[in-house]
Amino acid sequence: MKQRKLNHLMDLTTILGIVAGVGLVIGAIMSGEGGMFFVDIPAAMIVVGGTLGATLIHFRMNDILSVFRVLRKVFTAPQISNTETIANLVRLAERARREGVLSLEPELQALDDDFTRKGFQYAVDGADPETIRIILESELVSLEERHKLGQGIFVSMAQTAPAFGMIGTLIGLIQMLRSLQNPAMLGPGMATALVTTFYGAMLAYMFFQPVAGKLANRSKEELLQKELIMEGILAIQSGDNPRIVREKLMSFLAPSHRRQFNSQVRSDAQIAK
Amino acid sequence: MKQRKLNHLMDLTTILGIVAGVGLVIGAIMSGEGGMFFVDIPAAMIVVGGTLGATLIHFRMNDILSVFRVLRKVFTAPQISNTETIANLVRLAERARREGVLSLEPELQALDDDFTRKGFQYAVDGADPETIRIILESELVSLEERHKLGQGIFVSMAQTAPAFGMIGTLIGLIQMLRSLQNPAMLGPGMATALVTTFYGAMLAYMFFQPVAGKLANRSKEELLQKELIMEGILAIQSGDNPRIVREKLMSFLAPSHRRQFNSQVRSDAQIAK
Amino acid sequence: MKQRKLNHLMDLTTILGIVAGVGLVIGAIMSGEGGMFFVDIPAAMIVVGGTLGATLIHFRMNDILSVFRVLRKVFTAPQISNTETIANLVRLAERARREGVLSLEPELQALDDDFTRKGFQYAVDGADPETIRIILESELVSLEERHKLGQGIFVSMAQTAPAFGMIGTLIGLIQMLRSLQNPAMLGPGMATALVTTFYGAMLAYMFFQPVAGKLANRSKEELLQKELIMEGILAIQSGDNPRIVREKLMSFLAPSHRRQFNSQVRSDAQIAK
Amino acid sequence: MKQRKLNHLMDLTTILGIVAGVGLVIGAIMSGEGGMFFVDIPAAMIVVGGTLGATLIHFRMNDILSVFRVLRKVFTAPQISNTETIANLVRLAERARREGVLSLEPELQALDDDFTRKGFQYAVDGADPETIRIILESELVSLEERHKLGQGIFVSMAQTAPAFGMIGTLIGLIQMLRSLQNPAMLGPGMATALVTTFYGAMLAYMFFQPVAGKLANRSKEELLQKELIMEGILAIQSGDNPRIVREKLMSFLAPSHRRQFNSQVRSDAQIAK
Amino acid sequence: MKQRKLNHLMDLTTILGIVAGVGLVIGAIMSGEGGMFFVDIPAAMIVVGGTLGATLIHFRMNDILSVFRVLRKVFTAPQISNTETIANLVRLAERARREGVLSLEPELQALDDDFTRKGFQYAVDGADPETIRIILESELVSLEERHKLGQGIFVSMAQTAPAFGMIGTLIGLIQMLRSLQNPAMLGPGMATALVTTFYGAMLAYMFFQPVAGKLANRSKEELLQKELIMEGILAIQSGDNPRIVREKLMSFLAPSHRRQFNSQVRSDAQIAK
Repeated sequence: MKQRKLNHLMDLTTILGIVAGVGLVIGAIMSGEGGMFFVDIPAAMIVVGGTLGATLIHFRMNDILSVFRVLRKVFTAPQISNTETIANLVRLAERARREGVLSLEPELQALDDDFTRKGFQYAVDGADPETIRIILESELVSLEERHKLGQGIFVSMAQTAPAFGMIGTLIGLIQMLRSLQNPAMLGPGMATALVTTFYGAMLAYMFFQPVAGKLANRSKEELLQKELIMEGILAIQSGDNPRIVREKLMSFLAPSHRRQFNSQVRSDAQIAK
Repeated sequence: MKQRKLNHLMDLTTILGIVAGVGLVIGAIMSGEGGMFFVDIPAAMIVVGGTLGATLIHFRMNDILSVFRVLRKVFTAPQISNTETIANLVRLAERARREGVLSLEPELQALDDDFTRKGFQYAVDGADPETIRIILESELVSLEERHKLGQGIFVSMAQTAPAFGMIGTLIGLIQMLRSLQNPAMLGPGMATALVTTFYGAMLAYMFFQPVAGKLANRSKEELLQKELIMEGILAIQSGDNPRIVREKLMSFLAPSHRRQFNSQVRSDAQIAK
Repeated sequence: MKQRKLNHLMDLTTILGIVAGVGLVIGAIMSGEGGMFFVDIPAAMIVVGGTLGATLIHFRMNDILSVFRVLRKVFTAPQISNTETIANLVRLAERARREGVLSLEPELQALDDDFTRKGFQYAVDGADPETIRIILESELVSLEERHKLGQGIFVSMAQTAPAFGMIGTLIGLIQMLRSLQNPAMLGPGMATALVTTFYGAMLAYMFFQPVAGKLANRSKEELLQKELIMEGILAIQSGDNPRIVREKLMSFLAPSHRRQFNSQVRSDAQIAK
Repeated sequence: MKQRKLNHLMDLTTILGIVAGVGLVIGAIMSGEGGMFFVDIPAAMIVVGGTLGATLIHFRMNDILSVFRVLRKVFTAPQISNTETIANLVRLAERARREGVLSLEPELQALDDDFTRKGFQYAVDGADPETIRIILESELVSLEERHKLGQGIFVSMAQTAPAFGMIGTLIGLIQMLRSLQNPAMLGPGMATALVTTFYGAMLAYMFFQPVAGKLANRSKEELLQKELIMEGILAIQSGDNPRIVREKLMSFLAPSHRRQFNSQVRSDAQIAK
Repeated sequence: MKQRKLNHLMDLTTILGIVAGVGLVIGAIMSGEGGMFFVDIPAAMIVVGGTLGATLIHFRMNDILSVFRVLRKVFTAPQISNTETIANLVRLAERARREGVLSLEPELQALDDDFTRKGFQYAVDGADPETIRIILESELVSLEERHKLGQGIFVSMAQTAPAFGMIGTLIGLIQMLRSLQNPAMLGPGMATALVTTFYGAMLAYMFFQPVAGKLANRSKEELLQKELIMEGILAIQSGDNPRIVREKLMSFLAPSHRRQFNSQVRSDAQIAK
């Protein structure tokens, strides 16, 4: 199961999205006069500070710090290939059928994924299938919980950032309206006040919200792969025919992936000849 | 099962909707002075670019590219006729009853729908009904997942487009208020700033949102048809009386469709005489 | 089961609501000067046309056309009397107990409700109770689906109408601000622009939203009645004591209805003497 | 079970809330100049009339009229004491254990709560426990449905009132902007227009929304008490040890209530000595 | 099980969040001119009084007063260590295996957590495992209910505070626009009116909302710990191997905690040598 060694490549889509979105907005700002009006340190402090403050109250320090680890996930693309995972499971099923489940033991050391190794270890130790399913499913549930927590921090920040943008604008408006001596200053004062709303909206819609979405998608992919592995282990333990194992696992995949899988199997077969 | 050969005709309702909605809005714009004020390239770049950027961060490139394939669905009308599907299943049930399930094997090659062929293949091979149900249901679940992903991209864009419309307007307002020398320019400046909000709202309410809705409806139709087929296959395999098969499947349909079905059956019967 | 012949009377509550709401709004408009400012054909075209366009993209033509049939439901009051339904079911239970379930067959022809007739037909034919329940429940599920679709169109229009109201106001504001020569025209121009927002809000909050709510309530009533009938049929088939049948079915009703029912039963008994 | 005779005392919390909230708002209005600007009959007519109109379309006349009965619930505090209910059930359990379930029959007449009497009647009549549970649970479900309907009317009015507040403001703005001759009147005109938004917001946030919330809380309390009674009846019928009955029922209560309960039981015991 | 004696330390994250958020906002206010414009007693009275009034109508006095107890939870950090809990349960499992479940009785007196003591008491008394699970799970359900109520009060206040902020601003605007004599006062009047919106937003986004979130997170932690204890008790009672008990309970924890656990176990072992 070599595919477990995930080479975390840069996720070019995420980076392209940030470059495209931020680039176009900056381009639009620069095309007008006075791009420097959009750089405003106190405004940034209100939006970032307020959002950070609310997040510190809402979540535990440990969970907030784990956000940086989670962010790495968004900027790198794990090479999860479900077709490879299935091919590996089918290969193990074939071996288990020929030589018995115990024959898989030496392979387990090579696995660098805890979930898979643990599952196979139970199967090799002859644990009850129902017990294996319960333990692996409870692992999946707690994995999903942890993923949800990470997403939840970003969802919460996506809701809080525009609120502090609005709070900053309110502060700016109140100050400006109160001390207004010269009506000619109304325009520039209001412009300054609106910069915090702009910051809050950009942070929320360009960053926090799509990142929360990406994390949800990544979570689904990872859980699907782990489910594939769990079903594969259970099928192997119950001595299912490798062909049936493949069929069962393939029904989890989208048709487009299946075609890819079939052609890969075929080319594998040609190489094997 | 000839109805499987779907002639994808244009979906005239979708096209009529876009023509009517966009036409009326353009008409209203043209009826006033200065329709050209509504064409603003930088505004379009902020709204489209920002929405695209956020979408690139949120989803995988493959899924975003599949949007174009999905869009084709919205503009073409698949000729899914549940009454035809049921008539075909009843015909196969009659044949299976007379000549055995194995007699259906030659028909399978003619099917150009993977789901149906796979289901019948299992039935002909004598697989366990419970196994067939599990495999076909897991196909349905993963089909629904894929549909939900496509809808999700449009739902996400429907939420993001007005946000970037507002961001564009904020940028325009800040620039305008800051560099305002001549109060007479306040009006035109604000008008320009509002164009991005207009673009964002039009994209969201005239396109992304109704398209997401249509995809959800299409998904329901397709899943209902596949469910009909699954229940039909299982009923045929269990040797149900064709009359019972028809009754069971018809309870999935709306009364208006049933009347249509009954009259069709009757006219079929007359033709057969 | 004569109550099945539903005399669809006008639903006076609906009509009173529209008259009261629209009347008060028009009264408030007329009490000020210049009520004619509120009649604006282009504004109506943007709101109605845009909402219709988005609806055409979202739903199928057939479903949209069925809205008119559905609307009839909102303006007429079906005389669904659950107490009468129960009284009838209890009467049938008594007869079935005395003379056997087969004795109900002649009564079936008189029923003009498909659901009830179908259910009793299965009971008379001696079908398995579990089968009857499955078939009738799947009828209920598909009935609910159809009701949800009708409500869904109104819910969608209730969300779309204010959006196109806002789009119309944006168009008006942009045109007005751009071509503004005379600051004195600012007020009237803005007034014209706001008319579309007014139209969108009135359509949504005075019509689409409460109609969607009424449809949901009607759907619940109809499903409750059909559930009563289903449970009644199953109880009759299983040979339950008519007293138990009444008790079971009455537990579905609100206490106020029950009192009404008890007094009705008593007066029925007096008439029968 | 004397506690069933509910002395409906005034709910002082509700009244305090209204007095505090409305009082502070009126105080703030009075502290400025011109409190009479906030009394505006046409504005009240639009908000109240529009909300009422939409409610009449949405709900049935009977359900709307029942709102007044429901409102009484919000202003009176039912003396539901779960600890008393449990003490009574434990007492009945002891009696049933000593003298048999039939010995409870004379007590039933004294109950003025339909639900409890009905439940015990079934138990005394020796009905099947499963049947008792099904009937009582279906009572609970339909009770919850009725409660939900009452809450639903207030939730719907809480959403509609601000919408008609905004509609009234739009009407006022359009009239004012159109007929504006003297710019000096802009301020007062806008003030008048904003009064309807103020009315809509006050009605929604000070009345409809918290009342809907209180109804939801009351509903939960009532359902919890009825569930206690149901579980108590079933435990008594099955001949459970009174100590176990108390234990089971007490696990439904909050720890603070339990302490209260234990001290009460102890003081009861002392009185009994 | 000494870890039950929770030393409630200050929750530094919560305090840091409030200090950071409020500090940055006050800093931004002070950096401009006229920070005193932001102190406005009548504005505070409308926002706080209105929110309090709506809360009094919505909830029961007892529940509202319990908010202060609940708030203490947010500002103190319970030292819930799941790894310690598991270590203790494993230790008890080992003892129960060697000396029988009855040998645990003396330890029970030392427990200062009701839930744990009650659970073990049942196990020692030889109650049916299914009964223990039902009773402990119903405790968990009612604990969750109580937690939800506390969170619900904060969620409701987070929604109500901005509404009363807006109501206060409307009152200020109406007063100001009505009595406006001198256009130069427009600015300061509007500034005063906006202060209530600022107060409402700060209360909601800086306090009520993140506190509700923290309570939800605390509730999850506490329920997870109690679930661990319940599963541990049931495993001990059923005589599971201590190794299996540890394995089962550890599958509830996040991998990072597990590593921490394993190293702790190892160091415990070294100390024991």
